[in-house]
Amino acid sequence: MGPCGRSGDGGGGPVIPTVAWQDGVVVMIDQRRLPGEEVYLRCRDHHEVAAAIRDMAIRGAPAIGVAAALGIALGVRNTQAEGDALGAAFDGICREMAATRPTAVNLFWAIDRMRRRFEAGRAQGGPALREALLREALAIEDEDLAACRRIGDLGAELIPLAARVLTHCNAGALATAGYGTALGVIRSAARQGKIKNVLADETRPYLQGARLTAWELGREGIPTTLIADNMAGHMMATGEVDAVVVGADRIAANGDVANKIGTYTLAVLARENGLPFYVAAPVSTIDLRTPSGDAIAIEERAPEEVTHHGGRRLAPEGVAVRNPAFDVTPHRYVTAIVCERGVARAPYSESLARLVAG
Amino acid sequence: MGPCGRSGDGGGGPVIPTVAWQDGVVVMIDQRRLPGEEVYLRCRDHHEVAAAIRDMAIRGAPAIGVAAALGIALGVRNTQAEGDALGAAFDGICREMAATRPTAVNLFWAIDRMRRRFEAGRAQGGPALREALLREALAIEDEDLAACRRIGDLGAELIPLAARVLTHCNAGALATAGYGTALGVIRSAARQGKIKNVLADETRPYLQGARLTAWELGREGIPTTLIADNMAGHMMATGEVDAVVVGADRIAANGDVANKIGTYTLAVLARENGLPFYVAAPVSTIDLRTPSGDAIAIEERAPEEVTHHGGRRLAPEGVAVRNPAFDVTPHRYVTAIVCERGVARAPYSESLARLVAG
Repeated sequence: MGPCGRSGDGGGGPVIPTVAWQDGVVVMIDQRRLPGEEVYLRCRDHHEVAAAIRDMAIRGAPAIGVAAALGIALGVRNTQAEGDALGAAFDGICREMAATRPTAVNLFWAIDRMRRRFEAGRAQGGPALREALLREALAIEDEDLAACRRIGDLGAELIPLAARVLTHCNAGALATAGYGTALGVIRSAARQGKIKNVLADETRPYLQGARLTAWELGREGIPTTLIADNMAGHMMATGEVDAVVVGADRIAANGDVANKIGTYTLAVLARENGLPFYVAAPVSTIDLRTPSGDAIAIEERAPEEVTHHGGRRLAPEGVAVRNPAFDVTPHRYVTAIVCERGVARAPYSESLARLVAG
Repeated sequence: MGPCGRSGDGGGGPVIPTVAWQDGVVVMIDQRRLPGEEVYLRCRDHHEVAAAIRDMAIRGAPAIGVAAALGIALGVRNTQAEGDALGAAFDGICREMAATRPTAVNLFWAIDRMRRRFEAGRAQGGPALREALLREALAIEDEDLAACRRIGDLGAELIPLAARVLTHCNAGALATAGYGTALGVIRSAARQGKIKNVLADETRPYLQGARLTAWELGREGIPTTLIADNMAGHMMATGEVDAVVVGADRIAANGDVANKIGTYTLAVLARENGLPFYVAAPVSTIDLRTPSGDAIAIEERAPEEVTHHGGRRLAPEGVAVRNPAFDVTPHRYVTAIVCERGVARAPYSESLARLVAG
């Protein structure tokens, strides 16, 4: 049991605490300091939760959704307002959460869900509404963990024996309420004895692969080899990869996938080398209101993430920098999308709509 | 005029000194410390030159060839041996140079050329032979600079107006005797007013793009935007690239190109996005004795290059690492190969043989 007061992995596996509610505080492991230090942030108001999301103390589309929901529950608990004033306070809290990161849809999905719960209990108000909002946020967290376990088990069926699986960024326990999406598939496949090795892209500029995926998989004893992003193509071309599995930050109605920058490149390379390219994500990542990838906002982050390494400037002063945090993989490169309700395949406009309808 | 005693760019352009002979010392800028510091290494014997190549104080296929030739001239100058003893010393010096880096063929080409000069003057021996070897090494350097200028001018004809050109690693003045190969094409195109912007891949793990290309182009006022390697695909897919130009460490007889790790990925992405993919390299990079890329040894370097950033460990202790320094781009992805003797196109087995024959 981690300091968050819940295991994050109720199935008896190793504990990787991502985010939790603890006596009126939202607690999360500060992912910026992994793997060197395991430090926990204790957010006492919703501003601190929003800052933690914006500054990437917590990241990963499903984890952001859970954190935002807990932050909203915290913000409403901390206000004494009732009636119209409470409605205005709620709107302000939601706006602050929505402004943290633009690309992952799970954030907006979680805010919408908290809003529906708020509207349903608004007339009641008082402690009962506040308790209902907290229960809703904790339900989002529990459902995400259950979804990841199901995604893992469904996805593992697609993984061959003795597989060498390449993954990008961290779509792991740390990116979700626990267990992970892409790493959930790898975890379930590893439990079935199918994983020979995981190739983890380091994932510049933020190094989620080097810092988080290598740490997560290392804790579980799943054999992992770290590579620079630009080595993935060489590994595929020289026959050292059997499948690629990644997560998603938003999946458009037509199956286009927004995910960590570099994902599109892996998808192109996988198809060029005849390898399956799988996307693993909960249904909450599917955004039927976004018709295609063209309509997805791509967040650009600070140039210092590219110019500085380990806190030191390594690029010359004054050089221009682009730093898109995500890219869009057209659906034609995607072999299958693994969700907790099933495995979607082309044509995605039909298969995804069926999954969302339940 | 840099401290190396020669400009490295005789055409009135900015001085970027790579390597030079100065009164019995091989002087080179220590590329490991750029762009933060401009520090010059003064190699007083051939062991120091070999170490500088092996430890990447100097890198880039043509520059390695020049440095090795100067190192051989230095080593022979420093020995008093004559006759059979001189032959044995020469063999030992060449073996030490050949063992520094396995992939770039220019190294072996330069050693072969020095050996032919040695054999031609061996009977004579004494100061005359030593002077002849130095003249040969300086000729290799001068010819490389001239080749780069010609490559630049021939390649610039392939670059459209207002071009956004993507490049990888540093195939620049620092990688050659001056002017550069891929960056020679960009320099010549910039002088013709054709360059709108250069996208420079940072080029993990050694960051030659972030540290060297951004520095070189910045000194000349050529607009440059730094990106992480995994952003190149996104830039191509969103219409922000008109052409890709890279250097080469070895070109096989069939046109397969060994170059810095990540080059293969760029070639696949360029073809997928309908963009030209150009390789710029002197004829000395073409290795007709290597039938195809399958036969090219790919150097693997130390894991610390991947696990440490700016001197700090950012990946967890104990994680396995792969660190291939090069990859092979099959000739089918290469639009053209620009050499000082002309522009080769498919079928490369014919066009490259013609260029080598001169």
